[in-house]
Amino acid sequence: MLKKINLLDEVNKINELYVYKKIAILNNNILSVVQVENRTLDFHVHENSDELFFVIEGEFKFDTDDGVILLKEGEMIVVPKGTRHRPIVTTLTKFLMIELPGTLNKQNSGDKYEDSDIN
Amino acid sequence: MLKKINLLDEVNKINELYVYKKIAILNNNILSVVQVENRTLDFHVHENSDELFFVIEGEFKFDTDDGVILLKEGEMIVVPKGTRHRPIVTTLTKFLMIELPGTLNKQNSGDKYEDSDIN
Repeated sequence: MLKKINLLDEVNKINELYVYKKIAILNNNILSVVQVENRTLDFHVHENSDELFFVIEGEFKFDTDDGVILLKEGEMIVVPKGTRHRPIVTTLTKFLMIELPGTLNKQNSGDKYEDSDIN
Repeated sequence: MLKKINLLDEVNKINELYVYKKIAILNNNILSVVQVENRTLDFHVHENSDELFFVIEGEFKFDTDDGVILLKEGEMIVVPKGTRHRPIVTTLTKFLMIELPGTLNKQNSGDKYEDSDIN
């Protein structure tokens, strides 16, 4: 049975920062939502997957070898695989992320992953 | 060089209804934006691709064999491949769509596709 997804409602259901909640699968890509505050990741590269960041609420800086890009609510960036990057998050920001399975891990995204009934 | 994408700005740059504008590629999936008004498509199935509808602005009804779902701004639905569906759009609504290449065509999405420098 199909269900709609309200992005803000879904991300607001998470009670902790840095918990990635899987909300859907699209052509083998995982859609997940996460709340982040005061976290700057190390520069890193995903060799096997492009990665999409969409700002549901808040804002953050996206740091690349070409400079820093400020992303606000309703804005997204698609990072091609192999591109060195790091997010810089100061104030509470709520994200939709899309990438292939195995792309997010503790080393390069900062924290833990909620169990989910979406496979 | 990476660039951010403001979804509302991108969809507002389109001057006609039913023109799908490609804005990015993510792991072989095409992201496109489109403005639609007063259009109900025939029921159809995509055999080879899941499909994501996200409402940037407006609202529409998503019709399936299990009933009708109303989607409003900030809401999305992921349609697994093989699922019979049709969108019913009455008032002007602005969408982000994500699916594999070849999924959208004139027969099942209603209209034309803008040439793009995104390949």
